[in-house]
Amino acid sequence: MWGASALAMGMIATFPGMAFAQEGKTADDLSSHGAAQRIAQTGVSSKAKNVILFIGDGMGDSEITVARDYLKGASGSFDGLDAIGQPDALSADGETGTGQYTTYSLGSNSSNRGVVTPVTDSAASGSGWATGTKTYNNAVSVDVSQNPQMNLIELAKANGLATGNVTTAEIQDATPAVLESHSTQRSCYGPQGKTDGTMNNAAKNCDAAQLKENGGIGSISEQLLDTRADVTIGGGSKYFKQTAQAGEYAGKTLWEQAAARGFQTASNDVDAFSNLSYKKGKPVLALLSDGNMPTQYNMTPALSQKATEARGAVTCSTNSAWLGNKNSSGNSASLADMATKAVDLLSAQVSDKSSNTSGFFLQIEGASIDKQDHAANACGQIGETDDLDKAISATVASLKASGQLDDTLIIVTADHAHTSQIVSDAPAYALSTILKSPVDGSTIVVSYGTATSTDAGADDSSVGYTAGGMEHTGTQLRIAASGPGARRVTGLTDQTDNFYTIAKALGLA
Amino acid sequence: MWGASALAMGMIATFPGMAFAQEGKTADDLSSHGAAQRIAQTGVSSKAKNVILFIGDGMGDSEITVARDYLKGASGSFDGLDAIGQPDALSADGETGTGQYTTYSLGSNSSNRGVVTPVTDSAASGSGWATGTKTYNNAVSVDVSQNPQMNLIELAKANGLATGNVTTAEIQDATPAVLESHSTQRSCYGPQGKTDGTMNNAAKNCDAAQLKENGGIGSISEQLLDTRADVTIGGGSKYFKQTAQAGEYAGKTLWEQAAARGFQTASNDVDAFSNLSYKKGKPVLALLSDGNMPTQYNMTPALSQKATEARGAVTCSTNSAWLGNKNSSGNSASLADMATKAVDLLSAQVSDKSSNTSGFFLQIEGASIDKQDHAANACGQIGETDDLDKAISATVASLKASGQLDDTLIIVTADHAHTSQIVSDAPAYALSTILKSPVDGSTIVVSYGTATSTDAGADDSSVGYTAGGMEHTGTQLRIAASGPGARRVTGLTDQTDNFYTIAKALGLA
Ligand SMILES: [Mg+2]
Ligand SMILES: [Mg+2]
Ligand SMILES: [Zn+2]
Ligand SMILES: [Zn+2]
Ligand SMILES: [Zn+2]
Ligand SMILES: [Zn+2]
Repeated sequence: MWGASALAMGMIATFPGMAFAQEGKTADDLSSHGAAQRIAQTGVSSKAKNVILFIGDGMGDSEITVARDYLKGASGSFDGLDAIGQPDALSADGETGTGQYTTYSLGSNSSNRGVVTPVTDSAASGSGWATGTKTYNNAVSVDVSQNPQMNLIELAKANGLATGNVTTAEIQDATPAVLESHSTQRSCYGPQGKTDGTMNNAAKNCDAAQLKENGGIGSISEQLLDTRADVTIGGGSKYFKQTAQAGEYAGKTLWEQAAARGFQTASNDVDAFSNLSYKKGKPVLALLSDGNMPTQYNMTPALSQKATEARGAVTCSTNSAWLGNKNSSGNSASLADMATKAVDLLSAQVSDKSSNTSGFFLQIEGASIDKQDHAANACGQIGETDDLDKAISATVASLKASGQLDDTLIIVTADHAHTSQIVSDAPAYALSTILKSPVDGSTIVVSYGTATSTDAGADDSSVGYTAGGMEHTGTQLRIAASGPGARRVTGLTDQTDNFYTIAKALGLA
Repeated sequence: MWGASALAMGMIATFPGMAFAQEGKTADDLSSHGAAQRIAQTGVSSKAKNVILFIGDGMGDSEITVARDYLKGASGSFDGLDAIGQPDALSADGETGTGQYTTYSLGSNSSNRGVVTPVTDSAASGSGWATGTKTYNNAVSVDVSQNPQMNLIELAKANGLATGNVTTAEIQDATPAVLESHSTQRSCYGPQGKTDGTMNNAAKNCDAAQLKENGGIGSISEQLLDTRADVTIGGGSKYFKQTAQAGEYAGKTLWEQAAARGFQTASNDVDAFSNLSYKKGKPVLALLSDGNMPTQYNMTPALSQKATEARGAVTCSTNSAWLGNKNSSGNSASLADMATKAVDLLSAQVSDKSSNTSGFFLQIEGASIDKQDHAANACGQIGETDDLDKAISATVASLKASGQLDDTLIIVTADHAHTSQIVSDAPAYALSTILKSPVDGSTIVVSYGTATSTDAGADDSSVGYTAGGMEHTGTQLRIAASGPGARRVTGLTDQTDNFYTIAKALGLA
């Protein structure tokens, strides 16, 4: 299954899509490339020089509204997040579109093999837009039969575009991983598994056949170096301390391998990141924290009804460990800093005629909206939404300044929705946090009720659970776009349609 | 406050809207007519002959997806609900739009006076699109100072359009009431309050100043007869057994008053409803059940984790009391039957040149998606969503057959979102129901976690709560439109924008 022929490089044909009103397709019918498309026949033909895809992990409509109500007031708007897709917001008469999209995945384990899975994980979801193929939870750009599916960065590179991948998570986490690798398990971070190199967990975290020592294509981090995107910025630096077990770089750490292969690297160093500049043929790999990057706001874990009412309305405070705070050199690494750095690097490459790149494809992920929602942490998810919103605003401003805004398709969406709900009063049997908006003074009650197991060690034994373990939800969610091809997101689409929206705008399909 | 001058009839000026990126407006700033608009400046100028507004009460994106996953499979689409807004679905190259809209209301009680309320009720929400004015929960087309605001049926009638109001709820319920009346309290159903006429609860259910005996404009039902929409179809017949306490019809029941004023009436009689036809100057008032109309599907109340797992996956069954079932005469009153009857009656009126009507405005509500979601009843809300979907399909087919489809703006949206969430496993401390889709075989777990109080009399004392009392949520939700003016719903709008979208399409503003 890991043969190179499965990944023939070059133009990819547009698979004929399903009719609009299809009903009752089985997982088998949906599992081939392009088979889950809803809009294959729509005649939007606008071409973009660049595409930037912003993903808020877990950013359903409820998560957007929680953050807007708190940060902007219920009548306010996000400068970035809400401006994408809004008629006339970025430019008069520019193409825009907003719509809803479905995120379900396909069963492959013993309990759900062959049937649709209504709730996706980040891996299957990301694989959907990265490759156009619906797959199973845990899959990283492989199909339900574990065959690698060509992803958008591979496709863009093969067609002469510069490419970038930015995230606030570990760079090996599912959402960025789908654009840099193909893995049957999302946990196969490195040649020694999901470790910092002091032990070898590969047997537990990776399918044996995928490992280099067994003739496979290797772990997610090793494939990242093979895929060689022009710009990679995120967290997860500690996993590059692992040592290759086989191949040309056997015995070397992944950081050593990256340097040997000509990458410009920065590890946990905001100043080095800030000073990076385009150098022909030397891709950037900047990993700025050991694991996921610290959040913008401090935690406010949800509490039981009596406890949350006793705590009263809270406001959010900035986390001193957030890399978006200016350091002593005046540098910072908010998602806006990372996004504009990526746009600068890719734009410089495209401007360098000798690089033979005609535009770029860039994914930028606000990863921890999801992670903080899992932790029932209202301020956490709000701060990460703010970080993403500001990254969008800064990117738009940068593109405008360099005259590229009208040629760039910008898409904003999420991979799945999440637990948080805005309610009027603290619920009786779900955890909640009461917020007071510093902008319009309103009281916002955020409820978290989807954790699947109780916790014998819970602080409050009368409640029996803690603020962890909240789950994804399966609702359709917002997709918004501005720029050439943006109208293609109008109506009801599927996340696999997003692959075609991007590929068509860039002339790749 | 009930003076006639507050309701000057005729053209209504478009209030200048707020800038797109506004932040932090207070409730006072938002409370005047048009002040909460987000899109006042958008230049869509298409004109429609007719506008039909479909409302799914409580039909957030999660509720839509629950029903689609079950009824159509996750990869399927609703023939009606999903076709509105979908490019090329109704007609090639017709105008379409989809977007998200905000539903918050304004505080007016002692705990929230002067601040924004993140979670609306159906009354404030309906008042928003009916009048273009943000108001307080419990308000029926009056502003935060309790001044009546002209609604779309009044405005349409004053401008020579035929008008209709259809619901599966009691016709006095908030969503239909906002188009037929102005009431400071949504409970002021009749001159004797919210009763069947065997007692007088007006002192409890109505503000005294609003009652006719005190010189006011009267209860919701009495105003319905004054407003005199051309077609009114729904439930709530028993409230018309009340007796007017003052005015020209004092001492007569509301049914007697309706007959005396020239209405064609049908009460709890599906055959009489089916046989209704257009008669010039004789509006239709058909109330087909005492209260809310029976639901399509039988109830499946949500259970605690252990109980729902023990029950296993359920499928939905049809309620024998549903009026959509054919009776012995072969007649029925599904929402599709009611919707097409309304379209037929209004179209016949417009075709009658002597009626001097140039088109129509019609609202059609699927009311009990909300009511069944409050009851944590998954099959209930799914069946009501199906009923609404089929009403949309039937309406589109009827308009197409009569050559009116291209001239009609059809909008589908909701008044607020609701509790239900699609999760992967039964939650530990929220109630849930496990469904098995009869279409794609997938297992769908629906979680309900927002009830605000426990219940000492709960069946399961270890859980301590029952499947009632679930709450609205404050998330932004889907608005979709097809037909002239449909593009105006693109992007982020507010529910008050919907008033202007309809009024502009009909040339009323
Ligand atoms: Mg992610
Ligand atoms: Mg209603
Ligand atoms: Zn995710
Ligand atoms: Zn997650
Ligand atoms: Zn409602
Ligand atoms: Zn309700």
